[in-house]
Amino acid sequence: MSEILKKEMFTIPKGMIYLDGNSLGPMPVDVPGRMAQMLSDEWGQMLIKGWNGAGWMDQPARIGDQIGRVIGTPDGSVVLGDTLSIKVYQALASALMMRPDRRVVLSDTGNFPTDLYMAEGLLGMLGQGYTLRTVAPDQVAQSITPDVAAVMLTHVDYRSGRVHDMNAVTQAAHQAGAVMIWDLAHSAGALALDLHGSQAEFAVGCTYKYLNGGPGAPAFIYVRPDLADTVKPALSGWLGHRAPFDFDPRYQPGQGIERMRVGTPPVLQMTTLECAMQAFDGVDMQQLRAVSVALQEQFIAGIEARAPMLTLASPRQSDQRGSQVSFAFDHGYAAMQACIHHGVIGDFRAPNIMRFGFTPLYIDADDVEQAIERIANIMADRLWDQPQFHARQKVT
Amino acid sequence: MSEILKKEMFTIPKGMIYLDGNSLGPMPVDVPGRMAQMLSDEWGQMLIKGWNGAGWMDQPARIGDQIGRVIGTPDGSVVLGDTLSIKVYQALASALMMRPDRRVVLSDTGNFPTDLYMAEGLLGMLGQGYTLRTVAPDQVAQSITPDVAAVMLTHVDYRSGRVHDMNAVTQAAHQAGAVMIWDLAHSAGALALDLHGSQAEFAVGCTYKYLNGGPGAPAFIYVRPDLADTVKPALSGWLGHRAPFDFDPRYQPGQGIERMRVGTPPVLQMTTLECAMQAFDGVDMQQLRAVSVALQEQFIAGIEARAPMLTLASPRQSDQRGSQVSFAFDHGYAAMQACIHHGVIGDFRAPNIMRFGFTPLYIDADDVEQAIERIANIMADRLWDQPQFHARQKVT
Repeated sequence: MSEILKKEMFTIPKGMIYLDGNSLGPMPVDVPGRMAQMLSDEWGQMLIKGWNGAGWMDQPARIGDQIGRVIGTPDGSVVLGDTLSIKVYQALASALMMRPDRRVVLSDTGNFPTDLYMAEGLLGMLGQGYTLRTVAPDQVAQSITPDVAAVMLTHVDYRSGRVHDMNAVTQAAHQAGAVMIWDLAHSAGALALDLHGSQAEFAVGCTYKYLNGGPGAPAFIYVRPDLADTVKPALSGWLGHRAPFDFDPRYQPGQGIERMRVGTPPVLQMTTLECAMQAFDGVDMQQLRAVSVALQEQFIAGIEARAPMLTLASPRQSDQRGSQVSFAFDHGYAAMQACIHHGVIGDFRAPNIMRFGFTPLYIDADDVEQAIERIANIMADRLWDQPQFHARQKVT
Repeated sequence: MSEILKKEMFTIPKGMIYLDGNSLGPMPVDVPGRMAQMLSDEWGQMLIKGWNGAGWMDQPARIGDQIGRVIGTPDGSVVLGDTLSIKVYQALASALMMRPDRRVVLSDTGNFPTDLYMAEGLLGMLGQGYTLRTVAPDQVAQSITPDVAAVMLTHVDYRSGRVHDMNAVTQAAHQAGAVMIWDLAHSAGALALDLHGSQAEFAVGCTYKYLNGGPGAPAFIYVRPDLADTVKPALSGWLGHRAPFDFDPRYQPGQGIERMRVGTPPVLQMTTLECAMQAFDGVDMQQLRAVSVALQEQFIAGIEARAPMLTLASPRQSDQRGSQVSFAFDHGYAAMQACIHHGVIGDFRAPNIMRFGFTPLYIDADDVEQAIERIANIMADRLWDQPQFHARQKVT
């Protein structure tokens, strides 16, 4: 475990047990210094020359390679930019253009809402009979009928943590002639992935959860290398052009994954993310995953023993679970507010889910033990049943 | 002029005359401190709680109001997010859905390429006879035929600085039943605008040029308030949902301009931009514009007198020009490299344009005089004709 735990690389307030790195990762300690330097030496001193002089223009591809190593893809197949919602749209639009005779997008009812919304917006605009079909997560593989153009799924369910079998579903999609799109929001940096080995055509993900890129860190998109030179980008922005600074009046897609770039990259967020990705240098993702599973098992056993009013809402089998554990509780909102008040940070997902993320880079068995202790006390003493914990706020 | 000039609020290296604020504004001196505080007190200490506790969730609307004051729109009609390319796409997609029976998007040949590329990508995907038609800038008003769904123009030409008559073109669009979309990339923070008064339906713009929001700062979108509750967002992301944290499986657009939000906002960039926008507190945009014109006139007169081999490529009449002055020169690339080498920062735009931006918040008549002096020397002594200035690099 010692090679995985890098607590000293992250900023976590004293007394806080942060089980919410699956929502927003904590700040790496190197970030403030790196950002101060970037502002002073790059934006402040180089100004416009920073695009080349400080390497801003190449960040999206450079960080793409860092992320590729974590998700199991070759160099040059991932690029950063935009938000995950936009990247979902971009992947789906390209996928539909690869199957012009098919009209159905298949997803599951457990998908994160924004993925479904973005599909709804795209398909609604396209008209022409395009339909979004959602089925229960365990029904996906058998529901890929010949009218399905693309199967679009989030690998790990944001509520329950249930994980799809990436290889099996991708294979089923391909057998039915459909294009496969994976959303890795809750997988990248948390699970041992072999995305390239799965043969999926597209994957997208965010970087502010397990990758600790900071609030609003950019998203990423992967295109299978054999397709990257032929895929049609619907979001055909100038930085995806093959020669952006020729100011050609006609769009001509760039080489490979570069064509999935769109507009001017958010350099401050990119710089922060690039710094944060150093925490993954030399990390064996299989080993990280094993530690994550051990922490989750410890947590489940402890909560079930000491806070039996919480009902496990995640799959019990660890290989069917991502890097989070969810419990259902009728007063889950108030209970999570009480947990937060007592320094155990997780989050609530409507209608009744209390969600806890496990991130072996900065959470260890002692943290888990303390979290169990505090939650057990909150539940035993009904500490959640106080007016201030019932008042609703926006929660992310 | 003294009320406009705020040189002490910006970081500009000693000896540098920065005439490139139309490409990337310089760093406001308050940014490093604000960013250090944000990292330490917000991300570092509040972590996930920053979304509400530090007001991150409301930044896109809050900064929208700051920008609205600069571009002449009421509070609650502008929201920040994504890149300008994405915002162009978003506005155009919504506009097309407002005119389902029309199939043409009209733009001009001087539009910034990414606007045309994004339209090309959208229309190509839609198929069904959708066409992008481009005409010469002075032919736009008379070319708005009854098949035109949307007129999509950049207000100030990125190369020449030529400015469209916002009211006249918008009126012509409306008379022909078309929706008007303005790209204010080179206008916001530079010109005195009355966008709301123009009655245009949509406007978009970036914030890293005259608004000094930093490299990759987010874009903005304006929707005319009477349309904001009915416009259909094609990029229907979760933060544009009317209740994002209900995790409703169906998209339901948010109230007013909020529906034009898409994904998770880039908080570090937003924080920087919000800080930078303070420079516009109390600025009278009419007065700022007057100073900009005076600086440009001084520059044109000086260059034409002392560097006659440069040919004015911007309109000579100041009311037809934005806040930049462009000169054509066959060896423009090398000449601009030489200017940069000698501390006069402008930029080059293919094929032969040397472009200089005038930003009265931090550029004064002394700076302009010095810039003229240095450029005159470079041209008189052919200092540009050296091998190192001919070697091409990517330039933004």
